[in-house]
Amino acid sequence: MSAPFVSIVEVGPRDGFQPIEQFIPTAQKLSLIDKLYDAGIRRMEATAFVSPRAVPQMADAPQLLAYCGDKPGLDVQVLVPSQRQAERALAADARHLAFVLSVSPKHNQSNVLRTPRESVEDFRSIVAMLPVYAKVRINLATSFDCPFDGSVNPDEALDLIEALAEISPDSEYCLCDTTGRVTPDRVGELFMRAKARFPQIERWAFHGHDTYGLGVANALAAYHAGVGVVDSSFGGLGGCPFAPGATGNVATEDLVWTFAKMGVATGIDLTRLLDAAEDAAALPGACVGGRVRDALGAKAPLAEVV
Amino acid sequence: MSAPFVSIVEVGPRDGFQPIEQFIPTAQKLSLIDKLYDAGIRRMEATAFVSPRAVPQMADAPQLLAYCGDKPGLDVQVLVPSQRQAERALAADARHLAFVLSVSPKHNQSNVLRTPRESVEDFRSIVAMLPVYAKVRINLATSFDCPFDGSVNPDEALDLIEALAEISPDSEYCLCDTTGRVTPDRVGELFMRAKARFPQIERWAFHGHDTYGLGVANALAAYHAGVGVVDSSFGGLGGCPFAPGATGNVATEDLVWTFAKMGVATGIDLTRLLDAAEDAAALPGACVGGRVRDALGAKAPLAEVV
Repeated sequence: MSAPFVSIVEVGPRDGFQPIEQFIPTAQKLSLIDKLYDAGIRRMEATAFVSPRAVPQMADAPQLLAYCGDKPGLDVQVLVPSQRQAERALAADARHLAFVLSVSPKHNQSNVLRTPRESVEDFRSIVAMLPVYAKVRINLATSFDCPFDGSVNPDEALDLIEALAEISPDSEYCLCDTTGRVTPDRVGELFMRAKARFPQIERWAFHGHDTYGLGVANALAAYHAGVGVVDSSFGGLGGCPFAPGATGNVATEDLVWTFAKMGVATGIDLTRLLDAAEDAAALPGACVGGRVRDALGAKAPLAEVV
Repeated sequence: MSAPFVSIVEVGPRDGFQPIEQFIPTAQKLSLIDKLYDAGIRRMEATAFVSPRAVPQMADAPQLLAYCGDKPGLDVQVLVPSQRQAERALAADARHLAFVLSVSPKHNQSNVLRTPRESVEDFRSIVAMLPVYAKVRINLATSFDCPFDGSVNPDEALDLIEALAEISPDSEYCLCDTTGRVTPDRVGELFMRAKARFPQIERWAFHGHDTYGLGVANALAAYHAGVGVVDSSFGGLGGCPFAPGATGNVATEDLVWTFAKMGVATGIDLTRLLDAAEDAAALPGACVGGRVRDALGAKAPLAEVV
């Protein structure tokens, strides 16, 4: 029997860089992507095709995509929120699109100016124009909890998945805890329900945030529910720099450390990853998180009483 | 059926204050204990009876014990590392002793200058002199991992429990992750094995550290393995102030927040607890941790893309 393995999707170059107001020079982004690749990252959300006016940090999406596309064995996904942006991404030779929509109507409206059902129709158009070689992941934001409306009814997430699965059961379905407020029991429960209801969907993923300290716990709950793909961001990059407590994505190094302790392979070298994470933490305006970077960077702790 | 409940043992006044070098005036400690009690804390490790020369911060143990003993419904445990200190504690009218020994011989030697088996004999002497009204908890430090020797073989923990259970099956057995390096799978596994092997022991507890970000995840693993008593420290107090990454105990507010989200009652008011945690974080020389204090203290996060 082969050793257990989990596939980590490094989303730092997209979800981590995006909230940083000051533009990170493209060359610096490429250098960080190099370090991630050299650490063993083989799947990455490298950038987003969004309005450069709305998100100037993502204005160099085509350059990043072209650069990453040349790296052997790197599965590069790019975020697209609409049919129009999917067209731009495909024109730039994207091979793996990550479409985003929200379960919560309010969040979808705020995020992509559509109702969830309008986003489903956008998705239908995207699937219709996909080249045969292209892969799709669907990021279901606010699958568990919404910043505006709080806890999301699991049936709403399942009903939205049903509508999407009619269009494309072959896509990867990523349930996202956008606010960081879900608990592991609910993560496990929704995945178990979703997998039972949609046996035709074979690829599931989890995207969590660490705002309340449950990022790793929730990722483990997804893993134990049979989810083999988990998102994370090096250095825990991805919070909102204007809200000190709104820390961001679960840190890739925290996941790699934890899975290694559990005997689950990730293919990622922790030492090299920590080097990249230190660079991420030094980015001006970055909002970083995670614990392992600090813990391993500190002097050996003194013996404690208990 | 009554709602699920978990008993949280607030160990901040002992495990949290202990590593702070500057003496916290006794009146200030009492004021913090008042706030914890008013927030609903009903079980507390209030202090340690240890050599005041070795740990000056604990020099006011008798005063703290006397003060806490007057609070209605508060179960006050005090840490004792030896028979001599247990005598001191009982003379000061302690009703609940928390005896500490380590599974790892090196850690026990470093911590209490004895072999684990010598500590077992100390425990035998303590149990022999206990008044009938007194309760005992046993803190098994390094049950999973040792700062000197790394991962601890579960059989070593189980064999030590066996020796202790022959003396006192009625004690509470607290398995402690001293380094914060255990993962939830191993926490659950050791508790399941221990409960199966020692059906005569009815009271189990877990004490974890959050150094690598797994404090809450490990506490949940213990809870799901049927452990109804979990230690934590307000503000996450308890790291080593000279090792920046050696953050301390899992934060009580993180546990209270998480259990509340899961529908598990703790009897603790989060708002009042956060007020106490903010005071803890302001203690000179304090090494604090946890995420919920920051997350709830921050401005509402902006909507995020995923």
